[in-house]
Amino acid sequence: MTSGGLYQEILRKQSFLCVGLDTDIRKIPAHIQKSSSAVLDFNRAIVDATHDLAIAYKPNLAFYESRGSAGWEDLAETVKYIRSVNSDIFLIADAKRGDIGNTASMYARSFFEEMDFDAVTISPYMGKDSVQPFLEYEGRWVIVLGLTSNPGAEDFQFLTLQNKDNTKKLYEEVIQKAAGWSGHDRMMFVAGATRAELISEIRKIIPDHFLLVPGIGAQGGSLEDVVRAGMNDHCGLIINSSRSILYADDSESYASTARKKARELQQAMATYLK
Amino acid sequence: MTSGGLYQEILRKQSFLCVGLDTDIRKIPAHIQKSSSAVLDFNRAIVDATHDLAIAYKPNLAFYESRGSAGWEDLAETVKYIRSVNSDIFLIADAKRGDIGNTASMYARSFFEEMDFDAVTISPYMGKDSVQPFLEYEGRWVIVLGLTSNPGAEDFQFLTLQNKDNTKKLYEEVIQKAAGWSGHDRMMFVAGATRAELISEIRKIIPDHFLLVPGIGAQGGSLEDVVRAGMNDHCGLIINSSRSILYADDSESYASTARKKARELQQAMATYLK
Repeated sequence: MTSGGLYQEILRKQSFLCVGLDTDIRKIPAHIQKSSSAVLDFNRAIVDATHDLAIAYKPNLAFYESRGSAGWEDLAETVKYIRSVNSDIFLIADAKRGDIGNTASMYARSFFEEMDFDAVTISPYMGKDSVQPFLEYEGRWVIVLGLTSNPGAEDFQFLTLQNKDNTKKLYEEVIQKAAGWSGHDRMMFVAGATRAELISEIRKIIPDHFLLVPGIGAQGGSLEDVVRAGMNDHCGLIINSSRSILYADDSESYASTARKKARELQQAMATYLK
Repeated sequence: MTSGGLYQEILRKQSFLCVGLDTDIRKIPAHIQKSSSAVLDFNRAIVDATHDLAIAYKPNLAFYESRGSAGWEDLAETVKYIRSVNSDIFLIADAKRGDIGNTASMYARSFFEEMDFDAVTISPYMGKDSVQPFLEYEGRWVIVLGLTSNPGAEDFQFLTLQNKDNTKKLYEEVIQKAAGWSGHDRMMFVAGATRAELISEIRKIIPDHFLLVPGIGAQGGSLEDVVRAGMNDHCGLIINSSRSILYADDSESYASTARKKARELQQAMATYLK
Protein backbone atom coordinates (compact mmCIF):
# COMPACT_ATOMS: atom_id res chain seq x y z
CA MET A 1 0.00 0.00 0.00
CA THR A 2 1.21 3.52 -0.80
CA SER A 3 1.08 6.57 1.42
CA GLY A 4 -1.63 7.95 -0.88
CA GLY A 5 -3.65 4.72 -0.66
CA LEU A 6 -3.48 4.83 3.10
CA TYR A 7 -4.70 8.43 3.13
CA GLN A 8 -7.63 7.45 0.89
CA GLU A 9 -8.63 4.78 3.41
CA ILE A 10 -8.34 7.30 6.23
CA LEU A 11 -10.69 9.70 4.41
CA ARG A 12 -13.12 6.96 3.43
CA LYS A 13 -13.43 5.61 6.97
CA GLN A 14 -12.97 9.00 8.64
CA SER A 15 -10.55 7.27 10.94
CA PHE A 16 -6.84 6.89 11.63
CA LEU A 17 -7.36 4.26 14.28
CA CYS A 18 -5.15 1.20 14.60
CA VAL A 19 -6.42 -1.57 16.86
CA GLY A 20 -3.57 -3.27 18.70
CA LEU A 21 -4.29 -6.99 18.79
CA ASP A 22 -2.27 -7.65 21.95
CA THR A 23 -4.39 -10.64 22.79
CA ASP A 24 -3.45 -12.07 26.17
CA ILE A 25 -5.21 -15.37 26.74
CA ARG A 26 -5.36 -14.62 30.49
CA LYS A 27 -7.21 -11.35 29.92
CA ILE A 28 -9.88 -12.31 27.42
CA PRO A 29 -13.40 -13.03 28.75
CA ALA A 30 -13.58 -16.22 30.81
CA HIS A 31 -16.32 -17.79 28.68
CA ILE A 32 -14.04 -17.83 25.60
CA GLN A 33 -10.88 -18.94 27.40
CA LYS A 34 -12.12 -22.52 27.48
CA SER A 35 -12.26 -22.81 23.70
CA SER A 36 -9.28 -24.53 22.05
CA SER A 37 -9.23 -21.65 19.56
CA ALA A 38 -9.75 -18.94 22.20
CA VAL A 39 -7.30 -16.33 20.87
CA LEU A 40 -8.41 -16.73 17.28
CA ASP A 41 -12.11 -16.62 18.24
CA PHE A 42 -11.48 -13.47 20.26
CA ASN A 43 -9.49 -11.80 17.46
CA ARG A 44 -12.15 -12.64 14.86
CA ALA A 45 -14.86 -11.16 17.05
CA ILE A 46 -12.81 -7.98 17.63
CA VAL A 47 -12.08 -7.66 13.90
CA ASP A 48 -15.76 -8.23 12.99
CA ALA A 49 -16.73 -5.52 15.47
CA THR A 50 -14.16 -2.91 14.45
CA HIS A 51 -12.97 -3.33 10.84
CA ASP A 52 -15.18 -0.54 9.48
CA LEU A 53 -13.87 1.84 12.17
CA ALA A 54 -10.14 1.06 12.02
CA ILE A 55 -7.70 1.52 9.15
CA ALA A 56 -5.05 -0.76 10.66
CA TYR A 57 -4.48 -3.69 13.00
CA LYS A 58 -1.27 -4.23 14.90
CA PRO A 59 -0.69 -7.59 16.58
CA ASN A 60 2.24 -7.44 18.98
CA LEU A 61 4.27 -10.57 18.35
CA ALA A 62 5.11 -11.17 22.01
CA PHE A 63 1.52 -12.09 22.79
CA TYR A 64 1.60 -14.84 20.16
CA GLU A 65 5.17 -16.07 20.70
CA SER A 66 4.47 -16.59 24.40
CA ARG A 67 2.26 -19.49 23.33
CA GLY A 68 4.83 -21.08 21.04
CA SER A 69 3.88 -22.65 17.72
CA ALA A 70 0.16 -22.57 18.63
CA GLY A 71 0.48 -18.81 19.07
CA TRP A 72 2.18 -18.45 15.68
CA GLU A 73 -0.61 -20.44 14.10
CA ASP A 74 -3.14 -18.04 15.69
CA LEU A 75 -1.18 -15.06 14.39
CA ALA A 76 -1.05 -16.43 10.83
CA GLU A 77 -4.77 -17.26 10.93
CA THR A 78 -5.60 -13.82 12.32
CA VAL A 79 -3.74 -12.17 9.43
CA LYS A 80 -5.59 -14.37 6.92
CA TYR A 81 -8.91 -13.58 8.56
CA ILE A 82 -8.34 -9.82 8.48
CA ARG A 83 -7.34 -10.00 4.81
CA SER A 84 -10.50 -12.00 4.00
CA VAL A 85 -12.77 -9.52 5.78
CA ASN A 86 -11.17 -6.34 4.48
CA SER A 87 -8.27 -6.46 2.03
CA ASP A 88 -7.52 -2.71 2.35
CA ILE A 89 -6.63 -2.87 6.04
CA PHE A 90 -3.02 -1.89 6.84
CA LEU A 91 -1.43 -4.73 8.78
CA ILE A 92 1.46 -4.01 11.14
CA ALA A 93 3.62 -6.71 12.72
CA ASP A 94 4.69 -5.07 15.98
CA ALA A 95 7.87 -7.07 16.28
CA LYS A 96 10.54 -4.45 17.08
CA ARG A 97 13.11 -6.61 15.34
CA GLY A 98 16.65 -5.53 14.49
CA ASP A 99 19.55 -7.78 13.50
CA ILE A 100 22.45 -8.01 11.02
CA GLY A 101 21.57 -8.01 7.31
CA ASN A 102 21.66 -11.77 6.76
CA THR A 103 19.28 -12.28 9.70
CA ALA A 104 17.10 -9.26 9.01
CA SER A 105 16.39 -10.84 5.60
CA MET A 106 14.99 -13.88 7.40
CA TYR A 107 12.73 -11.69 9.53
CA ALA A 108 11.55 -9.86 6.41
CA ARG A 109 10.69 -13.21 4.83
CA SER A 110 8.75 -14.14 7.95
CA PHE A 111 6.55 -11.05 7.97
CA PHE A 112 6.23 -10.24 4.27
CA GLU A 113 6.26 -13.71 2.66
CA GLU A 114 5.27 -16.25 5.32
CA MET A 115 2.61 -13.81 6.55
CA ASP A 116 1.04 -11.01 4.54
CA PHE A 117 1.88 -7.98 6.72
CA ASP A 118 2.17 -4.50 5.20
CA ALA A 119 4.66 -3.24 7.76
CA VAL A 120 6.96 -4.30 10.56
CA THR A 121 8.30 -2.28 13.50
CA ILE A 122 12.10 -2.14 13.76
CA SER A 123 14.47 -1.20 16.55
CA PRO A 124 17.19 1.10 15.18
CA TYR A 125 20.13 0.25 17.47
CA MET A 126 21.97 -1.88 14.87
CA GLY A 127 21.71 0.73 12.11
CA LYS A 128 21.09 0.77 8.39
CA ASP A 129 21.88 -2.82 7.41
CA SER A 130 19.35 -4.04 9.97
CA VAL A 131 16.63 -2.03 8.18
CA GLN A 132 17.61 -2.38 4.52
CA PRO A 133 16.41 -5.97 3.91
CA PHE A 134 12.86 -4.97 4.85
CA LEU A 135 12.93 -2.14 2.30
CA GLU A 136 13.62 -4.57 -0.51
CA TYR A 137 9.99 -5.64 -0.52
CA GLU A 138 8.11 -3.34 -2.90
CA GLY A 139 5.02 -1.79 -1.33
CA ARG A 140 5.88 -2.92 2.21
CA TRP A 141 6.81 -0.59 5.03
CA VAL A 142 9.34 -0.28 7.81
CA ILE A 143 8.25 1.48 11.01
CA VAL A 144 11.34 2.58 12.94
CA LEU A 145 11.22 3.15 16.70
CA GLY A 146 11.90 6.85 17.12
CA LEU A 147 10.51 7.95 20.45
CA THR A 148 8.77 5.32 22.55
CA SER A 149 6.04 5.83 25.13
CA ASN A 150 7.53 3.86 28.04
CA PRO A 151 9.46 5.24 31.05
CA GLY A 152 12.67 3.58 29.81
CA ALA A 153 12.66 5.90 26.79
CA GLU A 154 14.49 8.30 29.13
CA ASP A 155 17.46 5.96 29.51
CA PHE A 156 18.96 6.31 26.04
CA GLN A 157 16.58 8.01 23.58
CA PHE A 158 16.94 11.35 25.37
CA LEU A 159 20.72 11.34 25.62
CA THR A 160 22.16 14.56 24.27
CA LEU A 161 24.64 14.12 21.45
CA GLN A 162 27.82 16.05 21.07
CA ASN A 163 27.25 18.41 18.13
CA LYS A 164 27.72 22.08 17.40
CA ASP A 165 25.17 23.37 19.92
CA ASN A 166 24.82 20.24 22.10
CA THR A 167 21.05 20.17 21.86
CA LYS A 168 20.30 17.19 19.62
CA LYS A 169 18.88 14.09 21.29
CA LEU A 170 19.55 10.51 20.21
CA TYR A 171 15.93 9.94 19.08
CA GLU A 172 16.15 13.01 16.84
CA GLU A 173 19.33 11.72 15.22
CA VAL A 174 17.74 8.27 14.79
CA ILE A 175 14.72 9.77 13.04
CA GLN A 176 16.76 12.13 10.88
CA LYS A 177 19.30 9.52 9.77
CA ALA A 178 16.81 6.69 9.21
CA ALA A 179 14.54 9.00 7.18
CA GLY A 180 17.45 9.27 4.74
CA TRP A 181 17.38 5.51 4.08
CA SER A 182 14.01 5.57 2.31
CA GLY A 183 11.14 7.87 1.36
CA HIS A 184 7.94 8.60 3.27
CA ASP A 185 6.14 6.10 1.07
CA ARG A 186 8.04 3.20 2.65
CA MET A 187 8.99 4.29 6.14
CA MET A 188 7.12 5.51 9.22
CA PHE A 189 8.27 6.25 12.76
CA VAL A 190 6.96 5.29 16.18
CA ALA A 191 6.34 8.43 18.24
CA GLY A 192 4.99 7.94 21.76
CA ALA A 193 1.79 9.81 22.59
CA THR A 194 2.67 10.31 26.23
CA ARG A 195 5.05 12.98 24.90
CA ALA A 196 2.79 14.98 22.59
CA GLU A 197 4.88 18.13 22.99
CA LEU A 198 7.78 16.26 21.41
CA ILE A 199 5.71 15.15 18.42
CA SER A 200 5.77 18.78 17.24
CA GLU A 201 9.56 18.65 17.32
CA ILE A 202 9.56 15.39 15.36
CA ARG A 203 7.27 16.96 12.74
CA LYS A 204 9.93 19.59 12.07
CA ILE A 205 12.42 16.82 11.20
CA ILE A 206 10.02 14.71 9.12
CA PRO A 207 7.07 16.81 7.92
CA ASP A 208 5.77 14.19 5.48
CA HIS A 209 6.17 10.82 7.22
CA PHE A 210 3.39 8.91 8.88
CA LEU A 211 3.80 8.54 12.64
CA LEU A 212 2.58 5.44 14.43
CA VAL A 213 1.47 6.67 17.83
CA PRO A 214 1.04 4.18 20.65
CA GLY A 215 0.06 5.21 24.14
CA ILE A 216 -3.49 6.50 23.63
CA GLY A 217 -5.73 4.96 26.28
CA ALA A 218 -4.11 2.63 28.82
CA GLN A 219 -0.75 4.41 28.51
CA GLY A 220 -2.45 7.80 29.01
CA GLY A 221 -1.88 10.04 25.96
CA SER A 222 -4.45 12.58 24.74
CA LEU A 223 -5.85 12.33 21.21
CA GLU A 224 -6.32 16.08 20.87
CA ASP A 225 -2.73 16.86 21.88
CA VAL A 226 -1.36 14.32 19.43
CA VAL A 227 -3.49 15.60 16.55
CA ARG A 228 -2.52 19.19 17.22
CA ALA A 229 1.16 18.26 17.32
CA GLY A 230 1.38 15.67 14.59
CA MET A 231 -1.29 15.93 11.88
CA ASN A 232 -0.11 16.94 8.41
CA ASP A 233 -1.85 17.52 5.07
CA HIS A 234 -2.31 13.78 4.43
CA CYS A 235 -3.19 13.07 8.08
CA GLY A 236 0.23 11.57 8.79
CA LEU A 237 -0.98 9.81 11.93
CA ILE A 238 -1.92 6.25 12.78
CA ILE A 239 -3.04 6.13 16.38
CA ASN A 240 -3.02 2.82 18.16
CA SER A 241 -5.24 1.66 20.97
CA SER A 242 -4.97 -1.86 22.36
CA ARG A 243 -6.03 -2.61 25.92
CA SER A 244 -8.72 0.09 26.16
CA ILE A 245 -10.57 -1.51 23.22
CA LEU A 246 -9.77 -5.19 23.77
CA TYR A 247 -10.34 -5.46 27.49
CA ALA A 248 -13.03 -2.84 28.16
CA ASP A 249 -15.57 -5.54 29.01
CA ASP A 250 -15.03 -9.13 30.13
CA SER A 251 -18.65 -10.20 29.76
CA GLU A 252 -20.29 -11.92 26.76
CA SER A 253 -20.87 -8.51 25.19
CA TYR A 254 -17.12 -7.76 24.96
CA ALA A 255 -17.24 -7.38 21.16
CA SER A 256 -20.02 -4.79 21.17
CA THR A 257 -18.23 -2.89 23.94
CA ALA A 258 -15.00 -3.00 21.88
CA ARG A 259 -17.01 -1.57 18.96
CA LYS A 260 -18.37 1.19 21.18
CA LYS A 261 -14.85 2.13 22.36
CA ALA A 262 -13.48 2.05 18.80
CA ARG A 263 -16.43 4.09 17.58
CA GLU A 264 -15.81 6.79 20.21
CA LEU A 265 -12.22 7.11 19.00
CA GLN A 266 -13.24 7.05 15.32
CA GLN A 267 -15.83 9.77 15.86
CA ALA A 268 -13.33 11.96 17.68
CA MET A 269 -10.88 11.37 14.83
CA ALA A 270 -13.51 12.29 12.21
CA THR A 271 -13.84 15.76 13.73
CA TYR A 272 -10.12 16.37 13.14
CA LEU A 273 -10.30 15.15 9.52
CA LYS A 274 -12.92 17.77 8.52
CA MET B 1 23.10 -21.25 35.73
CA THR B 2 25.44 -18.97 37.69
CA SER B 3 28.52 -17.20 36.43
CA GLY B 4 30.61 -19.64 38.50
CA GLY B 5 28.80 -22.65 37.05
CA LEU B 6 29.45 -21.39 33.56
CA TYR B 7 33.14 -20.97 34.31
CA GLN B 8 33.28 -24.55 35.66
CA GLU B 9 31.85 -25.79 32.35
CA ILE B 10 34.40 -23.71 30.44
CA LEU B 11 37.25 -25.27 32.42
CA ARG B 12 35.85 -28.79 32.17
CA LYS B 13 35.43 -28.61 28.39
CA GLN B 14 38.45 -26.34 27.85
CA SER B 15 36.20 -24.30 25.59
CA PHE B 16 34.26 -21.06 25.49
CA LEU B 17 32.67 -21.84 22.15
CA CYS B 18 29.03 -21.11 21.37
CA VAL B 19 27.61 -22.71 18.25
CA GLY B 20 25.11 -20.43 16.56
CA LEU B 21 22.25 -22.56 15.29
CA ASP B 22 21.27 -20.20 12.48
CA THR B 23 19.81 -23.02 10.49
CA ASP B 24 18.70 -21.85 7.06
CA ILE B 25 16.76 -24.56 5.28
CA ARG B 26 18.12 -23.34 1.92
CA LYS B 27 21.74 -23.74 3.05
CA ILE B 28 21.73 -27.17 4.68
CA PRO B 29 22.97 -30.13 2.62
CA ALA B 30 20.64 -31.01 -0.24
CA HIS B 31 20.21 -34.63 0.84
CA ILE B 32 18.56 -33.54 4.13
CA GLN B 33 16.46 -30.74 2.69
CA LYS B 34 13.92 -33.25 1.38
CA SER B 35 13.09 -34.57 4.84
CA SER B 36 9.94 -33.19 6.45
CA SER B 37 11.99 -32.67 9.62
CA ALA B 38 15.03 -31.27 7.80
CA VAL B 39 15.92 -28.44 10.20
CA LEU B 40 15.47 -30.58 13.29
CA ASP B 41 17.47 -33.45 11.77
CA PHE B 42 20.26 -31.05 10.86
CA ASN B 43 20.28 -29.42 14.31
CA ARG B 44 20.35 -32.80 16.07
CA ALA B 45 23.30 -33.92 13.94
CA ILE B 46 25.18 -30.69 14.64
CA VAL B 47 24.48 -30.97 18.38
CA ASP B 48 25.56 -34.64 18.44
CA ALA B 49 28.79 -33.68 16.68
CA THR B 50 29.67 -30.65 18.82
CA HIS B 51 28.12 -30.80 22.32
CA ASP B 52 31.35 -31.95 24.00
CA LEU B 53 33.25 -29.09 22.34
CA ALA B 54 30.82 -26.22 22.91
CA ILE B 55 29.57 -24.72 26.18
CA ALA B 56 26.61 -22.93 24.57
CA TYR B 57 24.21 -23.00 21.65
CA LYS B 58 22.56 -19.91 20.27
CA PRO B 59 19.67 -20.32 17.84
CA ASN B 60 18.83 -17.04 16.12
CA LEU B 61 15.06 -16.76 16.21
CA ALA B 62 14.78 -15.25 12.73
CA PHE B 63 15.79 -18.52 11.10
CA TYR B 64 12.92 -20.32 12.83
CA GLU B 65 10.27 -17.61 12.59
CA SER B 66 10.79 -17.38 8.84
CA ARG B 67 9.12 -20.80 8.64
CA GLY B 68 6.13 -19.86 10.82
CA SER B 69 4.66 -22.26 13.34
CA ALA B 70 6.63 -25.20 11.88
CA GLY B 71 9.81 -23.25 12.56
CA TRP B 72 8.75 -22.58 16.15
CA GLU B 73 8.07 -26.24 16.61
CA ASP B 74 11.59 -27.00 15.34
CA LEU B 75 13.05 -24.45 17.74
CA ALA B 76 11.20 -25.90 20.74
CA GLU B 77 12.23 -29.44 19.77
CA THR B 78 15.84 -28.35 19.28
CA VAL B 79 15.90 -26.88 22.79
CA LYS B 80 14.45 -30.08 24.22
CA TYR B 81 16.95 -32.18 22.31
CA ILE B 82 19.94 -30.15 23.54
CA ARG B 83 18.67 -30.40 27.13
CA SER B 84 18.29 -34.18 26.78
CA VAL B 85 21.82 -34.61 25.40
CA ASN B 86 23.59 -32.29 27.81
CA SER B 87 21.71 -30.51 30.58
CA ASP B 88 24.66 -28.22 31.46
CA ILE B 89 24.74 -26.48 28.10
CA PHE B 90 24.06 -22.72 28.23
CA LEU B 91 21.16 -21.97 25.88
CA ILE B 92 20.83 -18.52 24.36
CA ALA B 93 17.76 -17.31 22.47
CA ASP B 94 19.24 -14.80 20.04
CA ALA B 95 16.06 -12.79 19.74
CA LYS B 96 17.22 -9.16 20.18
CA ARG B 97 13.83 -8.30 21.66
CA GLY B 98 12.97 -5.04 23.37
CA ASP B 99 9.50 -3.75 24.18
CA ILE B 100 7.50 -2.02 26.95
CA GLY B 101 7.30 -3.80 30.31
CA ASN B 102 3.91 -5.41 29.78
CA THR B 103 5.07 -6.87 26.46
CA ALA B 104 8.59 -7.72 27.59
CA SER B 105 6.97 -9.94 30.24
CA MET B 106 5.29 -11.91 27.46
CA TYR B 107 8.61 -12.37 25.68
CA ALA B 108 10.23 -13.51 28.93
CA ARG B 109 7.46 -16.06 29.33
CA SER B 110 8.08 -17.28 25.80
CA PHE B 111 11.81 -17.90 26.26
CA PHE B 112 12.01 -18.89 29.92
CA GLU B 113 8.72 -20.73 30.48
CA GLU B 114 7.43 -21.89 27.09
CA MET B 115 11.01 -22.84 26.13
CA ASP B 116 13.84 -23.61 28.56
CA PHE B 117 16.43 -21.03 27.49
CA ASP B 118 19.07 -19.77 29.95
CA ALA B 119 19.44 -16.37 28.32
CA VAL B 120 17.92 -14.03 25.78
CA THR B 121 19.54 -11.21 23.80
CA ILE B 122 17.91 -7.80 24.25
CA SER B 123 18.10 -4.57 22.28
CA PRO B 124 18.59 -1.65 24.68
CA TYR B 125 16.88 1.20 22.79
CA MET B 126 13.72 1.18 24.94
CA GLY B 127 15.62 1.27 28.25
CA LYS B 128 15.32 -0.31 31.66
CA ASP B 129 11.67 -1.38 31.72
CA SER B 130 12.24 -3.36 28.52
CA VAL B 131 14.94 -5.38 30.31
CA GLN B 132 13.55 -5.69 33.84
CA PRO B 133 10.89 -8.40 33.20
CA PHE B 134 13.59 -10.80 31.99
CA LEU B 135 15.56 -10.28 35.20
CA GLU B 136 12.64 -11.46 37.29
CA TYR B 137 13.43 -15.08 36.38
CA GLU B 138 15.87 -16.41 38.94
CA GLY B 139 18.95 -18.01 37.38
CA ARG B 140 18.18 -16.74 33.85
CA TRP B 141 20.24 -14.18 32.01
CA VAL B 142 19.82 -11.09 29.90
CA ILE B 143 22.40 -10.40 27.19
CA VAL B 144 22.22 -6.73 26.20
CA LEU B 145 23.41 -5.53 22.78
CA GLY B 146 26.37 -3.30 23.53
CA LEU B 147 28.55 -3.12 20.46
CA THR B 148 27.45 -5.13 17.44
CA SER B 149 29.61 -6.57 14.69
CA ASN B 150 27.72 -5.27 11.64
CA PRO B 151 28.54 -2.19 9.52
CA GLY B 152 25.37 -0.43 10.77
CA ALA B 153 26.89 -0.33 14.27
CA GLU B 154 28.50 2.90 13.04
CA ASP B 155 25.15 4.61 12.55
CA PHE B 156 24.14 5.08 16.18
CA GLN B 157 26.32 3.04 18.58
CA PHE B 158 29.35 5.24 17.87
CA LEU B 159 27.60 8.57 18.28
CA THR B 160 29.50 10.76 20.72
CA LEU B 161 27.47 11.95 23.68
CA GLN B 162 27.58 15.39 25.13
CA ASN B 163 29.39 15.03 28.47
CA LYS B 164 32.22 16.73 30.27
CA ASP B 165 34.96 15.81 27.83
CA ASN B 166 32.80 14.84 24.81
CA THR B 167 34.45 11.44 24.37
CA LYS B 168 31.84 8.94 25.53
CA LYS B 169 30.10 6.90 22.83
CA LEU B 170 26.51 5.70 22.96
CA TYR B 171 27.52 2.01 23.24
CA GLU B 172 29.71 2.84 26.26
CA GLU B 173 26.82 4.60 28.00
CA VAL B 174 24.49 1.68 27.15
CA ILE B 175 26.90 -0.81 28.71
CA GLN B 176 27.63 1.32 31.75
CA LYS B 177 23.99 2.14 32.50
CA ALA B 178 22.60 -1.34 31.81
CA ALA B 179 25.32 -2.93 34.00
CA GLY B 180 23.77 -0.98 36.87
CA TRP B 181 20.44 -2.78 36.43
CA SER B 182 21.76 -6.17 37.53
CA GLY B 183 24.93 -7.96 38.58
CA HIS B 184 27.39 -9.89 36.42
CA ASP B 185 25.68 -13.11 37.50
CA ARG B 186 22.55 -12.21 35.53
CA MET B 187 23.65 -9.97 32.70
CA MET B 188 26.11 -10.22 29.80
CA PHE B 189 26.81 -7.93 26.86
CA VAL B 190 27.19 -8.50 23.14
CA ALA B 191 30.55 -7.15 21.97
CA GLY B 192 31.34 -7.52 18.27
CA ALA B 193 34.61 -9.29 17.44
CA THR B 194 35.26 -7.30 14.30
CA ARG B 195 36.23 -4.52 16.73
CA ALA B 196 38.63 -6.31 19.10
CA GLU B 197 40.45 -3.07 19.94
CA LEU B 198 37.20 -1.79 21.41
CA ILE B 199 36.70 -4.88 23.57
CA SER B 200 39.62 -3.65 25.71
CA GLU B 201 37.73 -0.40 26.26
CA ILE B 202 34.58 -2.30 27.19
CA ARG B 203 36.57 -4.37 29.72
CA LYS B 204 37.49 -1.18 31.53
CA ILE B 205 33.77 -0.41 32.01
CA ILE B 206 32.73 -3.95 32.98
CA PRO B 207 35.74 -5.98 34.18
CA ASP B 208 33.63 -8.88 35.51
CA HIS B 209 30.83 -9.43 33.01
CA PHE B 210 30.75 -12.15 30.42
CA LEU B 211 30.87 -10.88 26.85
CA LEU B 212 29.07 -12.72 24.07
CA VAL B 213 31.23 -12.21 21.02
CA PRO B 214 29.76 -12.81 17.56
CA GLY B 215 31.70 -12.27 14.41
CA ILE B 216 34.40 -14.94 14.62
CA GLY B 217 34.57 -16.76 11.30
CA ALA B 218 32.20 -15.62 8.54
CA GLN B 219 32.12 -12.06 9.91
CA GLY B 220 35.91 -11.97 10.11
CA GLY B 221 37.09 -11.41 13.69
CA SER B 222 40.30 -12.96 15.11
CA LEU B 223 40.14 -15.26 18.14
CA GLU B 224 43.54 -14.22 19.42
CA ASP B 225 42.72 -10.51 19.30
CA VAL B 226 39.46 -11.07 21.16
CA VAL B 227 41.08 -13.19 23.86
CA ARG B 228 43.85 -10.67 24.41
CA ALA B 229 41.34 -7.85 24.67
CA GLY B 230 38.53 -9.48 26.57
CA MET B 231 39.54 -12.44 28.73
CA ASN B 232 39.27 -11.98 32.50
CA ASP B 233 40.01 -14.19 35.53
CA HIS B 234 36.88 -16.31 35.00
CA CYS B 235 37.30 -16.35 31.20
CA GLY B 236 34.52 -13.80 30.70
CA LEU B 237 34.10 -14.69 27.04
CA ILE B 238 31.59 -16.74 25.08
CA ILE B 239 32.62 -16.74 21.46
CA ASN B 240 30.06 -17.57 18.85
CA SER B 241 30.56 -19.21 15.51
CA SER B 242 27.64 -20.03 13.24
CA ARG B 243 28.08 -20.25 9.50
CA SER B 244 31.72 -21.41 9.55
CA ILE B 245 30.68 -24.49 11.55
CA LEU B 246 27.22 -25.15 10.15
CA TYR B 247 27.90 -24.72 6.45
CA ALA B 248 31.52 -25.77 6.08
CA ASP B 249 30.51 -28.84 4.09
CA ASP B 250 27.34 -29.54 2.12
CA SER B 251 28.04 -33.21 1.55
CA GLU B 252 26.82 -36.17 3.60
CA SER B 253 29.77 -35.72 5.95
CA TYR B 254 28.63 -32.23 7.03
CA ALA B 255 28.38 -33.27 10.69
CA SER B 256 31.92 -34.59 10.93
CA THR B 257 33.21 -31.47 9.16
CA ALA B 258 31.25 -29.33 11.63
CA ARG B 259 32.93 -31.29 14.44
CA LYS B 260 36.32 -30.71 12.87
CA LYS B 261 35.70 -26.95 12.63
CA ALA B 262 34.38 -26.79 16.20
CA ARG B 263 37.33 -28.84 17.43
CA GLU B 264 39.82 -26.45 15.80
CA LEU B 265 38.22 -23.56 17.65
CA GLN B 266 38.02 -25.52 20.93
CA GLN B 267 41.70 -26.48 20.73
CA ALA B 268 42.73 -22.90 20.06
CA MET B 269 40.57 -21.81 23.01
CA ALA B 270 42.16 -24.44 25.29
CA THR B 271 45.59 -22.88 24.77
CA TYR B 272 44.26 -19.57 26.13
CA LEU B 273 42.70 -21.25 29.19
CA LYS B 274 46.01 -22.69 30.39
